[in-house]
Amino acid sequence: MPQLRKDPVVSRWVIIATERARRPGNFVTYQNVDFGNKKDCPFCRNTDPEIYAIRPHGGGADSWLVKVAPSGTPLLSIDTKFKRHGFGVYDVIENYGAHEIVIETPEHIANMADLPQEQIQRVLQAYAARFKDLEKDANLQYIFAYKNYGLASGSRPIGHARSQIIASPVNPLRVKEKLAGAKKYYDYHERCLYCDLYRQEIERGERLIEETGHFVAITPFAPRFPFEVMILPKKHGCDFADGVSGLEGDLALIMKNVLLRFKIGLDDPAYNYIIHTSPLRQKRKEEKWQTIEEDYHWHIEIMPRLTKAAGFEKGSGFYICSIPPEDTADFLRKVDIHA
Amino acid sequence: MPQLRKDPVVSRWVIIATERARRPGNFVTYQNVDFGNKKDCPFCRNTDPEIYAIRPHGGGADSWLVKVAPSGTPLLSIDTKFKRHGFGVYDVIENYGAHEIVIETPEHIANMADLPQEQIQRVLQAYAARFKDLEKDANLQYIFAYKNYGLASGSRPIGHARSQIIASPVNPLRVKEKLAGAKKYYDYHERCLYCDLYRQEIERGERLIEETGHFVAITPFAPRFPFEVMILPKKHGCDFADGVSGLEGDLALIMKNVLLRFKIGLDDPAYNYIIHTSPLRQKRKEEKWQTIEEDYHWHIEIMPRLTKAAGFEKGSGFYICSIPPEDTADFLRKVDIHA
Repeated sequence: MPQLRKDPVVSRWVIIATERARRPGNFVTYQNVDFGNKKDCPFCRNTDPEIYAIRPHGGGADSWLVKVAPSGTPLLSIDTKFKRHGFGVYDVIENYGAHEIVIETPEHIANMADLPQEQIQRVLQAYAARFKDLEKDANLQYIFAYKNYGLASGSRPIGHARSQIIASPVNPLRVKEKLAGAKKYYDYHERCLYCDLYRQEIERGERLIEETGHFVAITPFAPRFPFEVMILPKKHGCDFADGVSGLEGDLALIMKNVLLRFKIGLDDPAYNYIIHTSPLRQKRKEEKWQTIEEDYHWHIEIMPRLTKAAGFEKGSGFYICSIPPEDTADFLRKVDIHA
Repeated sequence: MPQLRKDPVVSRWVIIATERARRPGNFVTYQNVDFGNKKDCPFCRNTDPEIYAIRPHGGGADSWLVKVAPSGTPLLSIDTKFKRHGFGVYDVIENYGAHEIVIETPEHIANMADLPQEQIQRVLQAYAARFKDLEKDANLQYIFAYKNYGLASGSRPIGHARSQIIASPVNPLRVKEKLAGAKKYYDYHERCLYCDLYRQEIERGERLIEETGHFVAITPFAPRFPFEVMILPKKHGCDFADGVSGLEGDLALIMKNVLLRFKIGLDDPAYNYIIHTSPLRQKRKEEKWQTIEEDYHWHIEIMPRLTKAAGFEKGSGFYICSIPPEDTADFLRKVDIHA
């Protein structure tokens, strides 16, 4: 049974995923594995239980445009009571949470960049609907939606667009760091750091890739990876599901365009994205999060996988970016996505 | 000129390494590149300036057993005055620091596991000597020694054992996290967390790989990567260069053994290691670091590179470890390194 364990020094929670345990000497790499064809695709005619679906007009119970199903190899699942315990200097939570797969299209299309804008809009609606449902569980603290595309992203070699949702009983370290940093700025300025940041980026323009009515796509000032992109909503809000409501079409447009810029400009690279939202607010008892609705601002990180993080970066958390974000923004801006 | 930039949200410093700028579409991967032969090896007959060397008894000025040279493509260097400035919501430090290469042997041997214990001892002496010299610069805050071995580690394809030293004018985020976590524990218990941790590990034994007179090698309770190993000194101390003094031989022994366990048990995998020491203490003005000598404990992290971090992990800092550390410790313990 998977277990959540807390690093006693930095308080980073790690999922020990024994269910998928790979034995020593059996670390499969997917290089040179067939990228999957339509006939064998487990997502084209998916028979997994349906957690949520968006159906076509007049479609029957077995037809769907977007389908959410439980993960076949769940990292976390709610099959036990929530149980947290200590063990000397260590902390453990037994398996608790949710892990779902969002099948983004009934068609055998691999890259979200190739889906129509309306279809990406439906995927975003599905994320928000699942966030709204999962947040009812008071034992959960955080919900992620993320995507791995391409082998270098950690994805399995199946050419069918899908993404994943994980609901966790703990707040991950990077989320805590972001919350703490945004709060420090708010405490001093009484303004949202992200609001100031995207306004500065629009004004300067040098790291701006694209702007729509409601969203801004930039390369971060201090990126961890070359060509890293951040999409921010102009309207302040800490919560993805609340914030995206009514703006799914506009967000779908800017996401499609950024992903097309990657595909065309960088030769169809592997990439990951992750939606950063606030922790679930029923857990807002901790004093340090009292102002979370004012000081945090939801956003999306998109990372093409062009380089490997080396030992220095893994060990230190001190990243080396080999190309300035002004250059990558300029490059991505100039990609002709209407060619 | 490289630049250090601070992420305004999480206060993570990133090196923007414009000197090595790789253009879009030019991200070289080293797969299928020749692993380098002795004839072309830039480290076998190294002509770079010598920063430090350990010479054989009676050896001349051009003979060395371990040599430290400036990096040919430095991430940081001290060729400007220390200059820190702001820019709207952002923070910048112009290029400042040091980046050195430790050539670990005059022989064309790739893996540190294959060096004699005495030679690894010399490498550790070289690290300590460089730490002692670099810490004289009051603008520097942190010194790393780290190694990338094998292509998957981010190393270049040259089969000659070497490691790197970076001296930085800022404390990296992971170091700050470790310091903060250790301090919290010390504030409550008035004991060092790492001292309690290694004693608990020796007592339980399930994550213990090896113990020497002065060091312990364990798999961490909440590892980020499968087969991750941590080496801790039994004698409390926050500073690597001070702490290792007189114990270099014993540390060389346990390091060689752990690296041999990787090589034999895991089929010569790529790996990284990084030495975690305290920030330089001339900078200990900040109140939160007042107790650093009591609450921090230097150690080494060694990470074989068997899996890729996927998007979820990159984005969230929430790691998934596919095999429990008790199993990897058991596996590594059983590797016959004397075969």
